[in-house]
Amino acid sequence: MKVKAENNRENSVPKGVTDFLPEQAELIGFIEERINRTFELWGFRRIIPPMFEFEELLAVGMDDSLRDKSFRFEDRQSHRLLAIPPDITPQVARIEAMRMSGYPLPHRLYYNGRVLRQVESQSGRSRELFQSGVELIGLESPEADAEMIAMSAEVLRKLGFTGFKLDLGQVEFFRGIMSAADLSLSVLKALQESIARKDSTTVRSILESVDIPDVTKSEIAELPRMFGSADVIQKASLTVRNDRSRRALDNLAKVVDILAIHGIRDELTIDLGEIRGLSYHTGVTFEGFVPDIGEPVCGGGRYDGLMGRYGRPAPATGFAFNVLNLLQGLEKSAVINLPVTPKILLFNMKEDRTAALELTARLREKGFIVARDIIRRDLHDSIEYARRTGIQSVVIVGDLAADERDAVLLKVSDGTRRVFTMTDQAFLDRSELFS
Amino acid sequence: MKVKAENNRENSVPKGVTDFLPEQAELIGFIEERINRTFELWGFRRIIPPMFEFEELLAVGMDDSLRDKSFRFEDRQSHRLLAIPPDITPQVARIEAMRMSGYPLPHRLYYNGRVLRQVESQSGRSRELFQSGVELIGLESPEADAEMIAMSAEVLRKLGFTGFKLDLGQVEFFRGIMSAADLSLSVLKALQESIARKDSTTVRSILESVDIPDVTKSEIAELPRMFGSADVIQKASLTVRNDRSRRALDNLAKVVDILAIHGIRDELTIDLGEIRGLSYHTGVTFEGFVPDIGEPVCGGGRYDGLMGRYGRPAPATGFAFNVLNLLQGLEKSAVINLPVTPKILLFNMKEDRTAALELTARLREKGFIVARDIIRRDLHDSIEYARRTGIQSVVIVGDLAADERDAVLLKVSDGTRRVFTMTDQAFLDRSELFS
Repeated sequence: MKVKAENNRENSVPKGVTDFLPEQAELIGFIEERINRTFELWGFRRIIPPMFEFEELLAVGMDDSLRDKSFRFEDRQSHRLLAIPPDITPQVARIEAMRMSGYPLPHRLYYNGRVLRQVESQSGRSRELFQSGVELIGLESPEADAEMIAMSAEVLRKLGFTGFKLDLGQVEFFRGIMSAADLSLSVLKALQESIARKDSTTVRSILESVDIPDVTKSEIAELPRMFGSADVIQKASLTVRNDRSRRALDNLAKVVDILAIHGIRDELTIDLGEIRGLSYHTGVTFEGFVPDIGEPVCGGGRYDGLMGRYGRPAPATGFAFNVLNLLQGLEKSAVINLPVTPKILLFNMKEDRTAALELTARLREKGFIVARDIIRRDLHDSIEYARRTGIQSVVIVGDLAADERDAVLLKVSDGTRRVFTMTDQAFLDRSELFS
Repeated sequence: MKVKAENNRENSVPKGVTDFLPEQAELIGFIEERINRTFELWGFRRIIPPMFEFEELLAVGMDDSLRDKSFRFEDRQSHRLLAIPPDITPQVARIEAMRMSGYPLPHRLYYNGRVLRQVESQSGRSRELFQSGVELIGLESPEADAEMIAMSAEVLRKLGFTGFKLDLGQVEFFRGIMSAADLSLSVLKALQESIARKDSTTVRSILESVDIPDVTKSEIAELPRMFGSADVIQKASLTVRNDRSRRALDNLAKVVDILAIHGIRDELTIDLGEIRGLSYHTGVTFEGFVPDIGEPVCGGGRYDGLMGRYGRPAPATGFAFNVLNLLQGLEKSAVINLPVTPKILLFNMKEDRTAALELTARLREKGFIVARDIIRRDLHDSIEYARRTGIQSVVIVGDLAADERDAVLLKVSDGTRRVFTMTDQAFLDRSELFS
């Protein structure tokens, strides 16, 4: 089969996956580098789970709705069902429980990987997600929860985001209220959705039709209003009577206090009414948002029950960045702090390549990006090539006008030329001349 | 389902894939960082192809044997057949031809990704490969071929390998000889295998049974001996009469000459008898080997026909590292130049966390890895935890013996203590004290 070249994204890849060309790939690299560097400085160590697993074992760590999203196929070797993970956390839990019992707790682990999820045809959503995240296993203290949120703030700052928001919840608060009400699943779901929409009217009308204690009714009726700045926690503690919800509020308040010491206050919002996140969460959860992007750029929370499912009970918390949402956010934001490395095109006019190759190696040692212009064409075309590919300087070796030991540095932006001696280290150190 | 925790690799992942725990993951990160850095300094720009593609479109760039190795499944959305790529080069060719016609040639592109390949059950081979590679599209000069080989040598040196070998071939040499002989596929295959084994006896006995020109017979008979150092090229040119093979030798000699300018001589071996690599190769090919590892750590070559299959004909060359083979090589080699960052465990004895968190942030700004010891336990246990997890120093905030503004630096290796003022920048700059 031969295909016709067309600059056509639609025809070249399936819906929900993307080719990332150099401009976007560079930004993704920048994002992942900042994330990984932060994770490492906070003492997290990388692990690399495999691209596919036994479906049955992976499913242990997922709820059914996520499980249904995984890409599955039969193993030609074992004839067991395999799956490509739709989420990396269950893989980390499996590895921690089944492979790392020799390491002392707590474990600080990070990963960056790509996962696949089946989505509705018409949703237009990505089927391939880039996840970079951490798991902190073996600690139940609020300080561990705060560590997750503080790290996410540090990464967002390092990426240059301003005006980001971190939205905190505590799933036990909602569960504490609901456990006193013996509601059918359909009523519970309807309530949950109206609360998430902050739709007090619908919540009240649902409550009129059910037979549950009055105190619980009034607690539920308040839920659509239980979001906003940190003082929501204080307000909620005046409304809510049940112990489980009150413990949840105390726990959340401690996390907020520790975050204040980290210098994180104005970025925080609280939402006690929304049960977001995956069903395995058991405590404080959070999501991060950057300006102009509707989807969260990160999210996570406590999941004290998950490790036990893999046979090694332990408290745990974690979160992950959605790297492609961060990419979108960066593309919309004005400031991108991409480190700029001078790019040079080296144009050799000599028959002998020795001088050109030696100078190239020397420039690379200085940290410059140097592409050798191997193609046979005239200098004018090479300068045009440099301009179109974002290269700032052309260095010409063997220009007839120059001395044998000299080269010419030509600025692509304005065409100015500067002769220098190829062995002049001091000149080569002046990176501003090349950028 | 609940599972029983066992430290058992066999039961936890399918055959042919691996969990990489922190020690190995760190080495993989080190390898990929060195590779990417080199690719970038040589002017290559990253692209990120998707994890799956339309099988039909991917197959355009693969021979049948590779195509059979791909993991395939039906697209729930389009009902077309999808495949997870067994090799990234066809993806790059597709992207270049169908998506990058707006960029001027040549293109220097790099990628690092993971691919899946079906393998025989009993082979014990990996089904998941980590590939980091480049494609240089739009250049037919021997200098472009030399650039690939020189880059691979630079990476192997930067990784600390000594005594590595780069084995060069030229597929046109073999094809030139064989095109004069009208041999059946089965005879051709038998010959190819005996030549690869350097089995002159079998080669001669096969030749006795076939009816081809004498000059071709003598050329073929020489093939099992046409390997060794660079002077093999000279010897071969005395033996071989056909033009196609002679042009191949000239081309290979030019590449070897350019590599000499790059300082690459002793590392080179030549093998004119082995047709390795993928069937899309059309010129110089090479493979890299490091001591004690039988499988190549990198390989590639010229493939001038591939781009045309995607509708945009262009000369091209490229190569990829097999990252897991490099990992094995590093693990067997004595010297690993892993950059060492001091690791600190911060132990807070104060009720108030402010001083501890401030010092932690300051140490991280200095580039130290700092894990906060959040768990409640006594200092002795913390030191033991640090020892077992490879942390060099414990910093204690709020030790009763110290002044309010002081902290204690405790070396894990010998238990020595040193008191310092937490705001003493000069002390914090002395990274040797912490490592």
